[in-house]
Amino acid sequence: MEDALTLTELAFSLNTAWVLICAFLVFFMQAGFGMLEAGFTRAKSAVSVLMKNLMDLSFGVIGFFFLGYAFMFGEGNAFIGAHGFELLNLPPETAGIATGAFFLFQVAFAATAATIVAGAVAERTKFLTYIVLSFLITAFIYPVVGHWVWGGGWLAEIGFVDFAGSTVVHSVGGWLAIISAAFVGPRLGRFDPEKKKSFSGHSIPLATLGVFILWFSWYGFNSGSQLAIASAADTAAVSLIAMNTTLAAALGGISAMTIVWLSTGKPQAGPTLNGVLGGLVGVTAGCAAVSPTGAMIIGIFAGIVVFFATILLEKLKIDDAVGAFPVHGAAGVFGTLAVGLFAVDGGLFYGGGFSLLGIQLLGVVAVAAWIFALAIPVLFILKKIFGLRVSRESEISGLDEHKHGVSAYPDFNR
Amino acid sequence: MEDALTLTELAFSLNTAWVLICAFLVFFMQAGFGMLEAGFTRAKSAVSVLMKNLMDLSFGVIGFFFLGYAFMFGEGNAFIGAHGFELLNLPPETAGIATGAFFLFQVAFAATAATIVAGAVAERTKFLTYIVLSFLITAFIYPVVGHWVWGGGWLAEIGFVDFAGSTVVHSVGGWLAIISAAFVGPRLGRFDPEKKKSFSGHSIPLATLGVFILWFSWYGFNSGSQLAIASAADTAAVSLIAMNTTLAAALGGISAMTIVWLSTGKPQAGPTLNGVLGGLVGVTAGCAAVSPTGAMIIGIFAGIVVFFATILLEKLKIDDAVGAFPVHGAAGVFGTLAVGLFAVDGGLFYGGGFSLLGIQLLGVVAVAAWIFALAIPVLFILKKIFGLRVSRESEISGLDEHKHGVSAYPDFNR
Amino acid sequence: MEDALTLTELAFSLNTAWVLICAFLVFFMQAGFGMLEAGFTRAKSAVSVLMKNLMDLSFGVIGFFFLGYAFMFGEGNAFIGAHGFELLNLPPETAGIATGAFFLFQVAFAATAATIVAGAVAERTKFLTYIVLSFLITAFIYPVVGHWVWGGGWLAEIGFVDFAGSTVVHSVGGWLAIISAAFVGPRLGRFDPEKKKSFSGHSIPLATLGVFILWFSWYGFNSGSQLAIASAADTAAVSLIAMNTTLAAALGGISAMTIVWLSTGKPQAGPTLNGVLGGLVGVTAGCAAVSPTGAMIIGIFAGIVVFFATILLEKLKIDDAVGAFPVHGAAGVFGTLAVGLFAVDGGLFYGGGFSLLGIQLLGVVAVAAWIFALAIPVLFILKKIFGLRVSRESEISGLDEHKHGVSAYPDFNR
Repeated sequence: MEDALTLTELAFSLNTAWVLICAFLVFFMQAGFGMLEAGFTRAKSAVSVLMKNLMDLSFGVIGFFFLGYAFMFGEGNAFIGAHGFELLNLPPETAGIATGAFFLFQVAFAATAATIVAGAVAERTKFLTYIVLSFLITAFIYPVVGHWVWGGGWLAEIGFVDFAGSTVVHSVGGWLAIISAAFVGPRLGRFDPEKKKSFSGHSIPLATLGVFILWFSWYGFNSGSQLAIASAADTAAVSLIAMNTTLAAALGGISAMTIVWLSTGKPQAGPTLNGVLGGLVGVTAGCAAVSPTGAMIIGIFAGIVVFFATILLEKLKIDDAVGAFPVHGAAGVFGTLAVGLFAVDGGLFYGGGFSLLGIQLLGVVAVAAWIFALAIPVLFILKKIFGLRVSRESEISGLDEHKHGVSAYPDFNR
Repeated sequence: MEDALTLTELAFSLNTAWVLICAFLVFFMQAGFGMLEAGFTRAKSAVSVLMKNLMDLSFGVIGFFFLGYAFMFGEGNAFIGAHGFELLNLPPETAGIATGAFFLFQVAFAATAATIVAGAVAERTKFLTYIVLSFLITAFIYPVVGHWVWGGGWLAEIGFVDFAGSTVVHSVGGWLAIISAAFVGPRLGRFDPEKKKSFSGHSIPLATLGVFILWFSWYGFNSGSQLAIASAADTAAVSLIAMNTTLAAALGGISAMTIVWLSTGKPQAGPTLNGVLGGLVGVTAGCAAVSPTGAMIIGIFAGIVVFFATILLEKLKIDDAVGAFPVHGAAGVFGTLAVGLFAVDGGLFYGGGFSLLGIQLLGVVAVAAWIFALAIPVLFILKKIFGLRVSRESEISGLDEHKHGVSAYPDFNR
Repeated sequence: MEDALTLTELAFSLNTAWVLICAFLVFFMQAGFGMLEAGFTRAKSAVSVLMKNLMDLSFGVIGFFFLGYAFMFGEGNAFIGAHGFELLNLPPETAGIATGAFFLFQVAFAATAATIVAGAVAERTKFLTYIVLSFLITAFIYPVVGHWVWGGGWLAEIGFVDFAGSTVVHSVGGWLAIISAAFVGPRLGRFDPEKKKSFSGHSIPLATLGVFILWFSWYGFNSGSQLAIASAADTAAVSLIAMNTTLAAALGGISAMTIVWLSTGKPQAGPTLNGVLGGLVGVTAGCAAVSPTGAMIIGIFAGIVVFFATILLEKLKIDDAVGAFPVHGAAGVFGTLAVGLFAVDGGLFYGGGFSLLGIQLLGVVAVAAWIFALAIPVLFILKKIFGLRVSRESEISGLDEHKHGVSAYPDFNR
């Protein structure tokens, strides 16, 4: 008896250790997003982007700690939870691991959903407005979706599959990104054909570093979502997840590079980097449910989806400064639907028929509807109270000097 | 019997694996410090700062391996240890984990204490002098303090609480930073009001990357200090530690940003970044002893402490180029005292009275006294033998070209 | 019975978790290599170097998944394996861990061998040619060597010791680097004494970041190669490995810095950074077989070997843009031979005589012969089909604008 108890305890410890390490990695994604978004925007506003990254993380932690966690995982109804505000009155164990570790993993996810918006609205959005929006995302907007899918809500009940968050995290961030970018409006001159070149990202090395950091951290994001490793079954699942993540990332990059190479004659860096991220986002929903072959197909198409979504935004004249919607929104939606096609258990191509695909589509649409229904009035109100955009002068001379009192690179001539 | 033995062995392995992973993260802090310190100083001396970082790590490893470990953890008296030089004649197990893993974790801590000084004295200090100082710190100055608190010395005996090193690591580094900066003197023109702007850090993106890396690595620093995870109690402790670390970091950044915003009208990047670090340093002593609420309060005040300590240095005309003393010294002292206030078991606000607070104060003062007593004569002697400062010409044209034969950014116009 | 089974299962999970975490770290080496190689080359070709890094990883994953893994670890003869293409028909467990985790660790190694070449041939090599070469390396060239040593092949049978790949990974990459660099020819003006200065690396901070990332990730590379941690013996081995890795890295940097300081009067950054990497590469073969003293001696001499190999390349007028051969080839060969000297069990200095040293020498020569025998015809054929070099115009104006349609730093004057 005593031995059995201790074995259980040791498995509990190993599972918790695993999730903690993965949570640390998910926090490190913030470094990746920071470098990616700063690298893909202009030098005169780099500080502004980075401060937004740092603050959506900081306020995101607070918003999720006091409110979001309870809305997402607290006992409640099919729509929303309402227990565990400030983590009070929770049992020491949640989902088979220590509650503190579970919270840490989840708060890192919430901060990821929030930070996706930063890049889309970069270089012209008011800092205070952005902070308030971030807080609302982690305190309420994201947790409700999370409750539907991971908190025992209605999408979980009907069998919607989103293992690590192509929809819950990435499409939520992506929809918020495109709506916010449309509301804020494009950067001055962004769609003037003569000035297009001047909107190139100011540091491809930083952006590339960001992608490498994100690839690395994504192992925590996806593998940690198993929430366990201390059994042969969990071990096999986690290994498959990590392998699928790798294959999709590689093929997302390859397919995006190939298509941009074929269509422009040059293997361009920006679209390729976003293709890698698209592969990662795409496989996030199904990494535990599809075979390596499925993961590779998802990666390939995710890279293509990112490419065409980028063109679409250009046509719509929505200025998403870093491609946040193509990467997180479009590839997130695609990846979620792809589960309905490629899931070894229940997917269309494995004899499951249209049933899972239909559920996936319903989930995708419901989440999009929720985000639109909330984001539009929220942005409208934020515009009234705080305003969305900095002044024309600030934007032209760069947000850094005007708004943060410092240049990102004071020693260099630009 | 055999089963029980194997269970114990497996727990030993899990504990060691945990500490090793955390040790790897603590080593990665060197990347964070390097980017932070280079980013916060001028482009013409970036190589010089980075070479100091790399070499205080390298010589720090050697100094701690041959001498420091034995002084810190070897059997000895209440003041100093003296056993295990070069790790010889040690048992295979220390503190419940493999001795090699314990050493690795500890040597990474020693290197952290040493590297804090690099930023404070950047852009004007002689390289050889700095290396000798680093070696002395890890070989003797730091290990003696470590012995007092973590090696079974007199501060441990009276109940001084410094879980992961707000005092042992950070205040030691911070005191050494301020004393060294005062001895070396300010950079030329640093306190000339007209030239102030020209001392801005040359790359806020690198500095921000540094902070994100440090936040990530700090999970290893604090959570690893439990030295165990293979039981329900350790698992709960480690989870609380990681959660407290997160909350304090977030609130350190928020409070520092708020105060600088209120006082200057702008949410400035440098003070905010240092506020995050202040929150991390502040919670390091008490992360295992305080509640999440306590951690949040510590984070808030740590951010404020960093802000005012920065102003104080400015008034004292001590040129601490990156704010090493405000972050590591001031927030380290504050965090150590805060344990006496917020410790759930023994803190003033939890009915413990002034007893623990008094012990904490004694520890803080004793450590400061030790550092002053050693650093002043050491710096005096180093000045006599090697000199502390580079020539006026080297400093004006930048240490990189003159002293390291290379520019950090040869392709860019400055 | 049931308890014993579960204990075994838990050990299996812990071992797999350990290898997965280490595999994640090895993937992160790609970030390190990317920053190192971009930092050590010129700004006008930074995008080109980074795209090569990203794509050798991506195509490397695919090549190893479909072909390389089967050639390396599949059942076969003493020369090559031939089972498990696309990971099909493999048992769920390999080498005591989940097969997926084993694959992940190994594919990260394969990608490391491939990416070493990118830096050597930077700034003048055709992108498509480079991608094809990368694919061939991970699909066939590297896996054959891997089979000899780690897949049960003939070098394993005669007792060749290369614990984590000084020869299998690093010397393979190093030989490929020097051969490719010789075939492609030097960058225009590279050996014109008047222009030497203009070939300095464009960002020492990025290169330094790369080295810190590599040092951190190397803990995964070396410690993970034990493939286990769930026993007292494995725990001790892993701890020794991590400690030896640290000591060799520190002393590699110190010795390289010392020799460049003595010979040029300045502690130069580039050679010092490569010295750290040389120490890491050098200790990789023997990290589990030598004592800490042995690791320190290996580190010292590896730093010296890197220094002199760099001079040799200069004399031979082979333009290895980042020092890939000195670091990975020369230090890799040295480190492999050093096992024959310093292995506690079988080394010359521990009474083992010349027997192990002879085996090590044979292995080093055989691997070099294999690489030369393949790389020369492969490069010859690639030259015929695709061409090796970009046009003179592209090279002079920089590969980024011409070949990738973007500048790495469009906002800065150069």
